[in-house]
Amino acid sequence: LSDSVNQASKDIKIDFTREGRQGFAEVIYGEGKSLTQLLAIAKIHTDAQQPLLVTRMNDGIMEPLCESFEGNTGELIKSENERTLVWLPESYESPKLTGQVALVSAGASDEAVLEEAEMTLNFFGASSFRVCDAGVAGIHRLLAHEERLHQATMCIVVAGMDGALPSVVGGLVGCPVVAVPTSVGYGACFGGVSALLSMINSCASGLTVVNIDNGYGAAMAGVRLLKSITKASK
Amino acid sequence: LSDSVNQASKDIKIDFTREGRQGFAEVIYGEGKSLTQLLAIAKIHTDAQQPLLVTRMNDGIMEPLCESFEGNTGELIKSENERTLVWLPESYESPKLTGQVALVSAGASDEAVLEEAEMTLNFFGASSFRVCDAGVAGIHRLLAHEERLHQATMCIVVAGMDGALPSVVGGLVGCPVVAVPTSVGYGACFGGVSALLSMINSCASGLTVVNIDNGYGAAMAGVRLLKSITKASK
Amino acid sequence: LSDSVNQASKDIKIDFTREGRQGFAEVIYGEGKSLTQLLAIAKIHTDAQQPLLVTRMNDGIMEPLCESFEGNTGELIKSENERTLVWLPESYESPKLTGQVALVSAGASDEAVLEEAEMTLNFFGASSFRVCDAGVAGIHRLLAHEERLHQATMCIVVAGMDGALPSVVGGLVGCPVVAVPTSVGYGACFGGVSALLSMINSCASGLTVVNIDNGYGAAMAGVRLLKSITKASK
Amino acid sequence: LSDSVNQASKDIKIDFTREGRQGFAEVIYGEGKSLTQLLAIAKIHTDAQQPLLVTRMNDGIMEPLCESFEGNTGELIKSENERTLVWLPESYESPKLTGQVALVSAGASDEAVLEEAEMTLNFFGASSFRVCDAGVAGIHRLLAHEERLHQATMCIVVAGMDGALPSVVGGLVGCPVVAVPTSVGYGACFGGVSALLSMINSCASGLTVVNIDNGYGAAMAGVRLLKSITKASK
Amino acid sequence: LSDSVNQASKDIKIDFTREGRQGFAEVIYGEGKSLTQLLAIAKIHTDAQQPLLVTRMNDGIMEPLCESFEGNTGELIKSENERTLVWLPESYESPKLTGQVALVSAGASDEAVLEEAEMTLNFFGASSFRVCDAGVAGIHRLLAHEERLHQATMCIVVAGMDGALPSVVGGLVGCPVVAVPTSVGYGACFGGVSALLSMINSCASGLTVVNIDNGYGAAMAGVRLLKSITKASK
Amino acid sequence: LSDSVNQASKDIKIDFTREGRQGFAEVIYGEGKSLTQLLAIAKIHTDAQQPLLVTRMNDGIMEPLCESFEGNTGELIKSENERTLVWLPESYESPKLTGQVALVSAGASDEAVLEEAEMTLNFFGASSFRVCDAGVAGIHRLLAHEERLHQATMCIVVAGMDGALPSVVGGLVGCPVVAVPTSVGYGACFGGVSALLSMINSCASGLTVVNIDNGYGAAMAGVRLLKSITKASK
Amino acid sequence: LSDSVNQASKDIKIDFTREGRQGFAEVIYGEGKSLTQLLAIAKIHTDAQQPLLVTRMNDGIMEPLCESFEGNTGELIKSENERTLVWLPESYESPKLTGQVALVSAGASDEAVLEEAEMTLNFFGASSFRVCDAGVAGIHRLLAHEERLHQATMCIVVAGMDGALPSVVGGLVGCPVVAVPTSVGYGACFGGVSALLSMINSCASGLTVVNIDNGYGAAMAGVRLLKSITKASK
Amino acid sequence: LSDSVNQASKDIKIDFTREGRQGFAEVIYGEGKSLTQLLAIAKIHTDAQQPLLVTRMNDGIMEPLCESFEGNTGELIKSENERTLVWLPESYESPKLTGQVALVSAGASDEAVLEEAEMTLNFFGASSFRVCDAGVAGIHRLLAHEERLHQATMCIVVAGMDGALPSVVGGLVGCPVVAVPTSVGYGACFGGVSALLSMINSCASGLTVVNIDNGYGAAMAGVRLLKSITKASK
Repeated sequence: LSDSVNQASKDIKIDFTREGRQGFAEVIYGEGKSLTQLLAIAKIHTDAQQPLLVTRMNDGIMEPLCESFEGNTGELIKSENERTLVWLPESYESPKLTGQVALVSAGASDEAVLEEAEMTLNFFGASSFRVCDAGVAGIHRLLAHEERLHQATMCIVVAGMDGALPSVVGGLVGCPVVAVPTSVGYGACFGGVSALLSMINSCASGLTVVNIDNGYGAAMAGVRLLKSITKASK
Repeated sequence: LSDSVNQASKDIKIDFTREGRQGFAEVIYGEGKSLTQLLAIAKIHTDAQQPLLVTRMNDGIMEPLCESFEGNTGELIKSENERTLVWLPESYESPKLTGQVALVSAGASDEAVLEEAEMTLNFFGASSFRVCDAGVAGIHRLLAHEERLHQATMCIVVAGMDGALPSVVGGLVGCPVVAVPTSVGYGACFGGVSALLSMINSCASGLTVVNIDNGYGAAMAGVRLLKSITKASK
Repeated sequence: LSDSVNQASKDIKIDFTREGRQGFAEVIYGEGKSLTQLLAIAKIHTDAQQPLLVTRMNDGIMEPLCESFEGNTGELIKSENERTLVWLPESYESPKLTGQVALVSAGASDEAVLEEAEMTLNFFGASSFRVCDAGVAGIHRLLAHEERLHQATMCIVVAGMDGALPSVVGGLVGCPVVAVPTSVGYGACFGGVSALLSMINSCASGLTVVNIDNGYGAAMAGVRLLKSITKASK
Repeated sequence: LSDSVNQASKDIKIDFTREGRQGFAEVIYGEGKSLTQLLAIAKIHTDAQQPLLVTRMNDGIMEPLCESFEGNTGELIKSENERTLVWLPESYESPKLTGQVALVSAGASDEAVLEEAEMTLNFFGASSFRVCDAGVAGIHRLLAHEERLHQATMCIVVAGMDGALPSVVGGLVGCPVVAVPTSVGYGACFGGVSALLSMINSCASGLTVVNIDNGYGAAMAGVRLLKSITKASK
Repeated sequence: LSDSVNQASKDIKIDFTREGRQGFAEVIYGEGKSLTQLLAIAKIHTDAQQPLLVTRMNDGIMEPLCESFEGNTGELIKSENERTLVWLPESYESPKLTGQVALVSAGASDEAVLEEAEMTLNFFGASSFRVCDAGVAGIHRLLAHEERLHQATMCIVVAGMDGALPSVVGGLVGCPVVAVPTSVGYGACFGGVSALLSMINSCASGLTVVNIDNGYGAAMAGVRLLKSITKASK
Repeated sequence: LSDSVNQASKDIKIDFTREGRQGFAEVIYGEGKSLTQLLAIAKIHTDAQQPLLVTRMNDGIMEPLCESFEGNTGELIKSENERTLVWLPESYESPKLTGQVALVSAGASDEAVLEEAEMTLNFFGASSFRVCDAGVAGIHRLLAHEERLHQATMCIVVAGMDGALPSVVGGLVGCPVVAVPTSVGYGACFGGVSALLSMINSCASGLTVVNIDNGYGAAMAGVRLLKSITKASK
Repeated sequence: LSDSVNQASKDIKIDFTREGRQGFAEVIYGEGKSLTQLLAIAKIHTDAQQPLLVTRMNDGIMEPLCESFEGNTGELIKSENERTLVWLPESYESPKLTGQVALVSAGASDEAVLEEAEMTLNFFGASSFRVCDAGVAGIHRLLAHEERLHQATMCIVVAGMDGALPSVVGGLVGCPVVAVPTSVGYGACFGGVSALLSMINSCASGLTVVNIDNGYGAAMAGVRLLKSITKASK
Repeated sequence: LSDSVNQASKDIKIDFTREGRQGFAEVIYGEGKSLTQLLAIAKIHTDAQQPLLVTRMNDGIMEPLCESFEGNTGELIKSENERTLVWLPESYESPKLTGQVALVSAGASDEAVLEEAEMTLNFFGASSFRVCDAGVAGIHRLLAHEERLHQATMCIVVAGMDGALPSVVGGLVGCPVVAVPTSVGYGACFGGVSALLSMINSCASGLTVVNIDNGYGAAMAGVRLLKSITKASK
């Protein structure tokens, strides 16, 4: 294996200077990438002592990938569903963005998507806090958190099934709200399409939406926003 | 015209005994029916002094149809959108069903569907009250009515766009809740499909759903329910 | 395993007082929950001697979950398809709701959904009886049960493929009818969408519909209804 | 106008010999054809004393088209919805096919499609009889005709909304059954798609289906069948 | 296993008299049925010396099911894809229907559906012949069979992908044509929906369509037809 | 008319204090509202000297509505497509939000949606500038504006047909980007669904999306964002 | 009107040099453009003596637009459906591309799309010939043209309904084939989606497809191809 | 195994003369074909010393199939994803087509489809070169290749997710462009439908499209084109 990894690590080109043009470090989209490819990418990053974020890894990748970091100092964080990985080299000093993001989810099954958003936000230096299990069928549980939501710079709201939660949150707060539909549900939820449509048609004005299960994308919208605020508040 | 109306009134067979088998008077589905056909039906009902409910009439029918009732005593009620008509003969003693139905709507544009439900309920002897403009983007407006909702025997909840309102109501009350999606909205609301899917996938358990804009159907579900309750409470 | 179960049983919060607000005990939605999570939930319920209903469990969960109840007196019921589980502690005295629900199914393959409805109804104290294999392509088999259907307080009608059965039942009886489309079929049945659309567009008035394969939801609509009747008949 | 009609009647080629190859006279599909084009076609047919069937004419065509037949002996038949026209020259001796087709429809609004089928059948020499307003929500009305249905060589069953009727008829009779979905309905009937899917997924075996509102196509399936029977019975 | 099979064979009711009402022996729909259920059904049929047709069996059923027939004289036929099974007891005298069905398929991958149709036809006593690999992209291969197609009483045409073949065959022959879309293809074929739509919209008049991959249904349409012809030609 | 307008202006309740809770003035959604209703709303606003924004007015409303403002000093702005109206009373001092929004559109037909966004932004005190006719099929035209785009606080990108423009803009800039699909196109654009899907699946990370033709919603997302920045930069 | 036309002709920028970069003159997409806008564009072109092609004009535009060319020498060509217009100034010398395009259509209703393709091809200097009314339900009519098709450099095949024709043509010829689905049909043709899917899934290899009714796009594919051939053959 | 392979190799008929009529050698569509069938096909080709191209093989086929070529001289090429195989006998002299095809892909995950196109092109004697990882979110990476793209005779552009790349390439070059949507993506990409729609609605004129993941089909369009050019340039 190590030969093919070495070979692959020479073929793959990671653009560590990308941050220059657009302001973001490159993130690795794991879906469809082989273990060899991801081991090579990990090697490149550890060799260069550059932070690494991998999302949507295929099954069976996480464990051997984590093992490959052994012997490298630094912080290794993996998501509960074993699909997202962050590695921060010891020497790495994370950026600190102004503001904080509220991560709101409807049910327990939506938390995997919320966690992807959270890891992405933190990787890019954005603070966040969680408001979980706040689905609209128990509206008083959400309202108990109303005060806290008013302190957020921005809300990311994650929900499957009827996708109703972002409409309620959007009516409660005046800050930017990004809605993330999830594939949680069955039957006519059509893998998240029901929630997606609900959010696109929200009666709360100014809500914006990302793809189904795209916690990463919502977090990146947050990073774009907090960078603007960080720049403006200087 | 009157000749063809007379002819038609002989050809059409209205089943005034239908109530016997299933317990409901026949209701006229107006869509696609010509003025001549509806005038004939009106004539049959006035001749027989039987109450009449017509739903979903085509454009341009309401005015001449109403005129044909002139000279007949009784009560004539028409909906604001000129698509639903009720005629109750003077001698008619409406049945009185036990219980009352809360009619809840999200926005002003949903009220036409709510009115169809209301006229149908009242035609069959069911009491109802309205809670309007209670969309979830202004959740505190809905909660102001919470006490009243707890007094309902059943809730009919009408909403377009994100169709989120029934999920919230379903979580607030313990009585039966019927959700009616409406075609209100544009773009990816797909003429009410977004709201329909949202309701079918509601995270509030025990919610049931009818067709888009089908205020009549929701009311009939209510009539079925209140009949059961009326029977049980005797 | 037992350590992580113990840990999880401390993290998870089950709301045994929920019945207060809305009138229903909490039900566990099994889909996507791990064995550890469900073992912890079972432990909490057995410790508190509270009845438990789990629906839509993933494959491979049922057997170890059942084993964990050993040593606890009480009644343990599992569905044939190993996706639904009920546990009633010995001391538990089930509520008794007024009325009875007819559970009607079209074909043998629809019976798994019917069973989910049945277990849910009984868990909440509602009586029910079955009318199986009554699909419309053999209409005389259904009509043989007509008399029995007239004795039901409410009908839950389960059908896949053409989803035609609820329209016929809705025309036969005057009581509330809830239709459950199932994913039984192939090709252009689209996992139950064909049956769902057929039911949403039923020519029988006052029929209401729940999500595909949602026997649990139909049963909860029944529980809401029978609670109303129980209250009214007191 | 008459000049352009004359010109068009020279440009258009009608294949009166087509019957030779496949056995059917050519039928004119009216949708999208201009008055001029249809007048020219009518002129060609009257000049050649050949029978004419036009289907799905656009609005406003029927009246002037009928007027153009004045002065020509023969039989002129037009449908109630002014979209189908038959002209049979006086000298024309219609073929006589063996067997008879039952035309069954669910509701009053489905009868326009049934009439298109009926006119087509009769144009090609097939006998037929009607069983109308036999929708499944009043199943006893259909069963009252059961004996008659058993006398048909073939059934064409027309229904919109839930499209459930063909499944019931297909279970009652052993002869070939062709189902025609109609666009009758609203909301999630999607212009007849709900009925089409219901029929394609029918639980009655051996049912076949044609396009939405395609009474003409169902009739042609009948003509193909009766030709086979006519040939076989000789 | 044999105990549960014996038990199941007592619970299951097979209606050997069904042929009386509608004229067809009962066929077993295998999808979703367990090995135990199917072994029990086989036992009932062998005990009663009644012919058996099972369609759409799940994976892994065919081999043990076939073994259970050992020791029973008679003919056992299984499809290449191991999803369809026919058993004819030795004493069984098959009916003989008048006419013959042409089974036409577009590509090699469509032949599994064609075989299901063929086995069903033959089970009910209908003769058939095959015209394979006649897809429209090689139109001269189809035309080489034109003469043979004219000898068929009816054509069943099976095609996936563009589903174009039935339109061409429908234009070549005057006898009844039933089109069967298959799920062969990938991408935007949507599991056969592309072929289904193509056939429903065929420009050849009088073509009728069954569900995707429903070779059984097309064959039953053929059986209905050949029964009519058999009756007529007596 | 004026009587009914007076009556309506008493029935309608406009919540001028709404700004308190969530921070936005109420905007009138014109779709489906009658002239009488909108005249009444205009009267309320002019009486109270409160600014007014009406979006998506039906045809034929704009002209008489504008006339009703005669005699009232202040600024009246109407969109080219006569669907959006702004009225600012003379005394009104608009808020001034920090930052500026780039409004980028693909083709000439997309500019109506862009104008709705522009009027909404300006109504709420946000500055904006236009980059028009910058569709991706002429990529060099867009790149000519790259420098200007880098000066925006946020980009709203409007495109129909292939909806490709936001992906390119999202890759060029680091600030927040909101994509607005439009219904411009024909055939398989499905009224904007093609563009909507393209944007939801954008390969540029952190892009968010609103409903088809929803220029108003995108602007409101901008207002939420600029409010955050205004607050942060104080 | 003329004032606003003059004004508009100053605001609109037509890029007569565009041909330089990509090699095509600019074509005006008429859909949604007002008469004023199109009159201004015409004025710019006549002033500059540059050829003009306008496609998909709205209703009521053609006549006044044509009148505006009066007094300008040159050739004015308009399509039968009054949606496409070509104006060639007298001085204009059309380019001459090598090769010829066969334009094949299935039915009479598809010819409007074929004409759009034809006018576009000729505008850009490409020769073409027509093979009309060659739908696959009359396959021998198509085969009568086989020899001619072999002489084409490329085939554009236009068909609605089942969209089957391109598959047959693609199997007959070895040259490039572009398929154009049309919106001709009704019911489950879904405005051309059925034909589009059929073509995308064609069993003839190497077929490519454009949007529904997009005769212009198919012609532009032809122009791209003939330019390559013209260049290669020099 | 070898017996059944021998038997199968006698049953299967490969048309090595097909090239005569249409000009293409037969290609084997591997999907759904068993190992036995493919081994037999390989045997026929090696026996006849005819080149072989197999596409879309099922999992687990490639390795044993490759082994069967041992002992046969010639070149064996397999794709990285183990779904495409080419075998060229030693004696085989490949045709040489004029021109070269640019193969452009958006992301790393799209390269499997690009490779299928590349192998097909080369099998038929067409030259090609790759421009990879040129997605529109990094537009400057694509523009760095602009000069090279202008040298292509034709471009095949492969992209998933938003499918935006072909629109940009189509605007850059004047040669024929064929777009290939891929199934790369998740959520609302619907297995490539999002990319397909984007390409069908491209704002770049003259772009044509093939099925999702159909690299083979795009290559065949290229082969058709290069054959035309080869013929023209002689």
